[in-house]
Amino acid sequence: MAAGSQIFPALLLIADGLGDRLVPELGNRTPLEAASTPTLDTMAAEGESGLLDPIAPGVRGGSDTGHLAILGYDPYRYYPGRGPFEALGIGMEVRPGDLAFRCNFSTVDSELVVLDRRAGRINEGTTELAAALDGMVIEDVTCFFKESIAHRAALVMRGPGLGARVTDVDPHADNVPVWVSHAVDPTDEASVKTARVLNAFVRKSFEMLDGHAVNTARRAEGKNPANVALPRGIGVSPHLPNFDAMNGVKGACIVEVGLVKGLARYLGMTVIDVEGSTASLDTDTGAIGRAVVDALGEHNFILCNVKGPDVAGHDKNARGKVGIIEKIDSMVAEIIEATHGQIIILVTGDHSTPVTYGDHTGEPCPVVIWGPPVRQDFVKSFGETAATQGGIGRIRGLDVVRILTSYMGVQEKFGA
Amino acid sequence: MAAGSQIFPALLLIADGLGDRLVPELGNRTPLEAASTPTLDTMAAEGESGLLDPIAPGVRGGSDTGHLAILGYDPYRYYPGRGPFEALGIGMEVRPGDLAFRCNFSTVDSELVVLDRRAGRINEGTTELAAALDGMVIEDVTCFFKESIAHRAALVMRGPGLGARVTDVDPHADNVPVWVSHAVDPTDEASVKTARVLNAFVRKSFEMLDGHAVNTARRAEGKNPANVALPRGIGVSPHLPNFDAMNGVKGACIVEVGLVKGLARYLGMTVIDVEGSTASLDTDTGAIGRAVVDALGEHNFILCNVKGPDVAGHDKNARGKVGIIEKIDSMVAEIIEATHGQIIILVTGDHSTPVTYGDHTGEPCPVVIWGPPVRQDFVKSFGETAATQGGIGRIRGLDVVRILTSYMGVQEKFGA
Repeated sequence: MAAGSQIFPALLLIADGLGDRLVPELGNRTPLEAASTPTLDTMAAEGESGLLDPIAPGVRGGSDTGHLAILGYDPYRYYPGRGPFEALGIGMEVRPGDLAFRCNFSTVDSELVVLDRRAGRINEGTTELAAALDGMVIEDVTCFFKESIAHRAALVMRGPGLGARVTDVDPHADNVPVWVSHAVDPTDEASVKTARVLNAFVRKSFEMLDGHAVNTARRAEGKNPANVALPRGIGVSPHLPNFDAMNGVKGACIVEVGLVKGLARYLGMTVIDVEGSTASLDTDTGAIGRAVVDALGEHNFILCNVKGPDVAGHDKNARGKVGIIEKIDSMVAEIIEATHGQIIILVTGDHSTPVTYGDHTGEPCPVVIWGPPVRQDFVKSFGETAATQGGIGRIRGLDVVRILTSYMGVQEKFGA
Repeated sequence: MAAGSQIFPALLLIADGLGDRLVPELGNRTPLEAASTPTLDTMAAEGESGLLDPIAPGVRGGSDTGHLAILGYDPYRYYPGRGPFEALGIGMEVRPGDLAFRCNFSTVDSELVVLDRRAGRINEGTTELAAALDGMVIEDVTCFFKESIAHRAALVMRGPGLGARVTDVDPHADNVPVWVSHAVDPTDEASVKTARVLNAFVRKSFEMLDGHAVNTARRAEGKNPANVALPRGIGVSPHLPNFDAMNGVKGACIVEVGLVKGLARYLGMTVIDVEGSTASLDTDTGAIGRAVVDALGEHNFILCNVKGPDVAGHDKNARGKVGIIEKIDSMVAEIIEATHGQIIILVTGDHSTPVTYGDHTGEPCPVVIWGPPVRQDFVKSFGETAATQGGIGRIRGLDVVRILTSYMGVQEKFGA
């Protein structure tokens, strides 16, 4: 940094699923364009706008791959598949090198033929069932197990010499036997070991769950017992460089998505929970904004994610998306006021979730950057259409953190 | 080339550190926007504008990495660190495979404890001291040594079987012994050899410098003797493809930065020195412009760098940056007149050096391309804000030479 130059903190605000398409019921505007957003519009007028492809143009990303990319980790290199992220998302500890699987509690007969892959969509007692399996040791491998929502759970295997190239045990259908896992390459001894441990885990899970009190009660009520755990979607937990060390910042994360919370923890960021944060349209954005301001005391890079726009997008709820965007606008106004504007703020989405489509799509998200050192362009409001004229042009998720740390004044120079 | 199509020469003009931010004392314009630049504005009106990230969006680059990228060499692949560039910058010959180090002349006692890392910031007699060390042979390795400014110097090692994974000898502090260099991996025999030669060089530099007449005189004046050379920042000189051969041009370089001059020589370009070129605000841009026109006699691709905008940026001198930009504008006018406009000209920067910040930052530089075959857009003036609307969009340094050689009509077709 140059002597005497000012250092600024930064807020990276992800309105989850922000990007959208033209909505007839909103007068052929996007929800962001239909919303009353005086703060975001002022930021666009005073700062720079553009379009951001979280991963690459046209790629339909997830919240996991989108946030990975926006935080500077190329998802094509670092995304390990759903297993590790699922485990992180429900608060399990995942270490580099661990194997992780998504799991179902399922119903099998004594021959391990699957009768019901979702065990009657069980939604009670899974904490007790998971506790029975958690900590199981097979050979020199420890198996950590935790329930998620309904019939879902995750398995983390930790031990020496485990390979990841194994076939699934979940047959993905009812009335067929549980598959026996094999190493894809029989000479790959590490994967042979994983397949052996995996098959033993499945067998043991049946032995431990079939007579469990929870299942005795379920049978008495005429419900399918959750008497086996069937892992799938193996992933090796990657070695991700520490976010703070890589970027020369002290990062904190205030996010509403469990998966992103797990990711941030994994990257070494401080994870801050907020009371009143519901990850839905009724979330307390005021409380989230106050938490952001508080976090700036000991941190200078805040990742904040508000989930509501994505929820409304999945529900095809155009008015709901407009409403949560207006709440986010007020939140940003309060953050600017509390920091006296001495902050760099970047607002964008991790993917588009158009209310006309009801799921993630590959269009870019609008992006605005605002703060004392930020250049200007000719754009006067924040929206998908206006952003096409912006000075940022079209950037990618991987560019975001570098753009911020340059404006913050904390980035190491590359070269002389 | 199509039969009968015209071939044009090209000028790649780098206004060093051109990009800037909004400056309050310039009416919230950038220095480029505040400057009177009728020639550059006409070029923007008749040609195409855009934004150029020399390396990638947000990356705070140097003049070395920035010029490497703009000349078509990916710095993440080719940048060898400071040592080789430092040596190139002071006019040393560096060959592919050579090891190069930055060095300090320092003061040590007879036990090689560092008393003053900068030898009293010596600024006289270093030519004689360097000459005493230059050409030293250790085992089968020749050590080339040359002074730079004040206590600074560079060392180039040339010989068979040298590795680069060695620890520094400069302890980076006073009142501690000179470090003994080691190979990072003791089984890496090439690096073991380098460490051995390096330690011998340091010991011999003490033996040859301690009693040198320059130091006898310094002691008599109560000054710290420069009685050892301490290398650091090892880099292996990379194999960079020849610029002319790679691009089908005959290249010349008229630049004010020693580092870039060394790089251009290394790439096989003709390096032309200009009397009156001072690398500062008082440089003779008229003489530089005439040298460009003269060079077009035997060359068809001229890299020209004017250092002043970067100097003013580092000095936070807004008016000075405006002034040197206006001198550059006049220089371009004279080049266009002398060539009757039969030339492709691209003007941009190698990085931003905002006068409000005083050092390099990661914002893109504005770029304009002008010449008989160049397309038009709607932009009417040359500046950071206007360029956001330009037809070039947002490109990278690595794109520049290809864009030029296509307009020049000399680029080989890729495909059929």
